[in-house]
Amino acid sequence: MPIKEGIRTGGRSARVQESVHAAVRALLQEQDRSTLTVPQVAARAGVTPSTIYRRWGELVALLADVALERLRPDTAPADTGSLRGDLLAWAEQYLDEMSSDVGRNMMRDVISSACPGYCTRILRSQLQVILARAERRGEALPDLDRLLDLLVAPTVFRILFAEAPPSLEQLHGLVDLALA
Amino acid sequence: MPIKEGIRTGGRSARVQESVHAAVRALLQEQDRSTLTVPQVAARAGVTPSTIYRRWGELVALLADVALERLRPDTAPADTGSLRGDLLAWAEQYLDEMSSDVGRNMMRDVISSACPGYCTRILRSQLQVILARAERRGEALPDLDRLLDLLVAPTVFRILFAEAPPSLEQLHGLVDLALA
Repeated sequence: MPIKEGIRTGGRSARVQESVHAAVRALLQEQDRSTLTVPQVAARAGVTPSTIYRRWGELVALLADVALERLRPDTAPADTGSLRGDLLAWAEQYLDEMSSDVGRNMMRDVISSACPGYCTRILRSQLQVILARAERRGEALPDLDRLLDLLVAPTVFRILFAEAPPSLEQLHGLVDLALA
Repeated sequence: MPIKEGIRTGGRSARVQESVHAAVRALLQEQDRSTLTVPQVAARAGVTPSTIYRRWGELVALLADVALERLRPDTAPADTGSLRGDLLAWAEQYLDEMSSDVGRNMMRDVISSACPGYCTRILRSQLQVILARAERRGEALPDLDRLLDLLVAPTVFRILFAEAPPSLEQLHGLVDLALA
């Protein structure tokens, strides 16, 4: 079931979400995710299980929602004064976060949930900040899809499927290729 | 636990593997993967659970092993007479297989297992067949890592994380970029 993003408008609904998310985060610190159940989360959050089923449909969608909440970065990408510098700084931080155990688990939860496109929407909004800044500086702009295909995709693919995540040198090569 | 590839040398060990794999495939047709247990697989395969634990370590590693067995293609990539044609044909078949539910589940199992690099080794050997053929024709050759980064990675990334898998037009664009 797709996650209902539209609901996050404050009020009772926002309080329920915050309390359920907090319950999941707390329980995940105490036990393995494979043993987590909806009734457990509901009890900790002080809501009924049916509230959770109605809103998230199934546990995996709730776990993905919590993971995506963490994915959403707190701060705007660093402003280094150039497009290439901004992309390098962003890509290094992204690689660092996603190649950690927390990052891999996040990606696994997201893949297991049926919320296609949520991740790439977050990534697009981040990269758009960088591109808008470059435009104000008068720099030539690559296409946003090109950045996803040539910079983000190889980074994620290597983290999930290759012998090792990309090295910093390889990451810089990807940035240069995306800008070429 | 990493999958012990080295063991596949025929004899008793190969027969155990084949029987356990067949049991997993049969059970997955009858029930959801989330309800599968090691004792169930053992009973169906006619081996003891400890045989499975000793060899695969945990259920997720066994599921990944079965998935990877399916990933390994039965046939060499089609010979269309040119590198570009071979890559297009290969990429279209790969997209078709991986964007199916079976393909997505395979990737999920592989990500959940700790056998880094196994997938990319299979992909490399496939692409190497295509490159060796192109070399015999005297064509200019792209780097194998470039094909993984610019053709395979965006295809997999879009299947797993974007709103939709790449269109055929986008896939052809990726082949052209990898060959540029």
